[in-house]
Amino acid sequence: MTTVLEHDLIGRLAAGLPRSSSQINGLHESDAELVRLPGSDLVLALTTDALAEEIATGLYADPWLIGWMLVTVNASDLAAVGADPLGLLVCETLPPDADPEWIAALQRGIADAAVAHELPVLGGDTNAGAAPHLAATAVGLVRGRPLTRCGARPGDLLFASGPLGAGGAYALARLLAPGGGTTVPFRPTARLREGALLREVASACMDTSDGAIATMDELMTRNGVGLRIERSVEAWTDPAALSAANAAAIPPWFLHAGPHGEFELLFTVRPERVQALDNAAGAIGWPPLQLGSVTAEPGLVVAHAGGYRTLDATGIRNLFGECGGDPGRYLRELRGMLPGRH
Amino acid sequence: MTTVLEHDLIGRLAAGLPRSSSQINGLHESDAELVRLPGSDLVLALTTDALAEEIATGLYADPWLIGWMLVTVNASDLAAVGADPLGLLVCETLPPDADPEWIAALQRGIADAAVAHELPVLGGDTNAGAAPHLAATAVGLVRGRPLTRCGARPGDLLFASGPLGAGGAYALARLLAPGGGTTVPFRPTARLREGALLREVASACMDTSDGAIATMDELMTRNGVGLRIERSVEAWTDPAALSAANAAAIPPWFLHAGPHGEFELLFTVRPERVQALDNAAGAIGWPPLQLGSVTAEPGLVVAHAGGYRTLDATGIRNLFGECGGDPGRYLRELRGMLPGRH
Repeated sequence: MTTVLEHDLIGRLAAGLPRSSSQINGLHESDAELVRLPGSDLVLALTTDALAEEIATGLYADPWLIGWMLVTVNASDLAAVGADPLGLLVCETLPPDADPEWIAALQRGIADAAVAHELPVLGGDTNAGAAPHLAATAVGLVRGRPLTRCGARPGDLLFASGPLGAGGAYALARLLAPGGGTTVPFRPTARLREGALLREVASACMDTSDGAIATMDELMTRNGVGLRIERSVEAWTDPAALSAANAAAIPPWFLHAGPHGEFELLFTVRPERVQALDNAAGAIGWPPLQLGSVTAEPGLVVAHAGGYRTLDATGIRNLFGECGGDPGRYLRELRGMLPGRH
Repeated sequence: MTTVLEHDLIGRLAAGLPRSSSQINGLHESDAELVRLPGSDLVLALTTDALAEEIATGLYADPWLIGWMLVTVNASDLAAVGADPLGLLVCETLPPDADPEWIAALQRGIADAAVAHELPVLGGDTNAGAAPHLAATAVGLVRGRPLTRCGARPGDLLFASGPLGAGGAYALARLLAPGGGTTVPFRPTARLREGALLREVASACMDTSDGAIATMDELMTRNGVGLRIERSVEAWTDPAALSAANAAAIPPWFLHAGPHGEFELLFTVRPERVQALDNAAGAIGWPPLQLGSVTAEPGLVVAHAGGYRTLDATGIRNLFGECGGDPGRYLRELRGMLPGRH
């Protein structure tokens, strides 16, 4: 099996570090770390995520969006384990000569997202540094069994919490015209309400922060299964993202090749639990999208041009890193790995 | 009252951010954030601290020490609220071309400190960036009333968990001879065991991460009281730090003027609880050092040359920042604000 490049690094960094006997999940098994609280039936969900490359590469340039995303990427990890949000710690490293208006917009973005996600800011740390570096830690509580990436079985059905591809469309627009303002709207909200509901009905769950294909690859690897995407890509791709891709002559699958996603949830449900999903989702007016099903045969098989085609999910996932940030080379090589338009 | 410069910034950043109704502490009232867990008598202690300036200025250059300190600074905040450690999240931003041996030493430092503090690494995040940026979040649990910076009353006695000044001696050595290796030993261990014990006997507590005088200033401000340091500075200054200061013709008080401390605890105890402190401390073979007492009259009054002298604690605390990192100017101006040798 081809390895995931980012996992190599994390595995090397984690080797030799002491682990906790109260921790429920192993490395890469869930979007947030899950720790059973001694002497209680509560499980603490913890996650930390920084925006470093996203700022350095100009993917996120607007300070309000940086603040919004700092909260959202962390809230999304809580959503994927079905945790109720407790709060957020914010660790801000800012240049001493940073524009006060830039900082004010950043703080507004953090505050707006904290309110939208009902994730109060508990505290944090401030530092001076040459380049802005924003990190945050989100904390949540799970009562009962948390949701993890593990638990999908052949025969389960695969769903998305909403249309996918907005993250990819946004990133491609920034990548292809980094100077010009992008017209692809991007202001995702983490699916906390949906994640809490899925805890009762889903067999496995992960957010699409790294793009849909990377998420599918991870769910397949964690569970030793394959995925068969029976619905055509147009059926579950965000309409605005699809229009933007069409206008730029980019085939729809490119929107899902990552590594920048839209913070929706991808999850699997046992066939006998689909009605429970529909009932619970209907009660909050949320329509999950069915994409396909889990197969015993490993590999990602996708509907295309009236038939099916197998994609090299791990290869696609690693490609951006392997191209060392060269957008031309990335798109050229991607073209050979993905279905075109039809 | 003169304001503390760092608090200005934090206050501005925190303004407008939504707070949690489950949070026990207000801004600056405790070393870690304290959150009551709904439906339980447990209090979660959370703290996040990054090493940014410490690396950028060369204060910490040895990668093992950087890793050790990343854990220790966060563990020390848990100690100051009397929390039992649950675990740590590590957020590492590293240059893509970082020396693998440098990274390996960093990870060893993190692992060694995690073991020493019984603070398992739960997870984290890795990013690529031009300069190394290390942040961590520590999580702990408090059963019952947590310890905060608030609660000191006139008549309470002031203690330190151990001799102070090692952090100042280390920083001064690096500041005055940044290129040469320092011979001042510095490898502090957070006072987790002592903090857990103090939860039952102390009225207020704070760690000396920012130096003893800054810590005294903060305890005075939080409690609207003064402090009278009755023991001469030589009696509670770390002997190795004192020798180094003498050799460099630096008066002992300079070791405590910050902003880099040694991660001991400064705490206050009601007179009627001192025997309980002695009993509990004796049981674990720990000798707390009495420094002085809490006064109704605001201000820091210190024993010097057979008499007493008042120090401008807030002014001393702000001086390093006001000097913009110019060590010569800092030491010159400090000389006028502190007692000399006698």
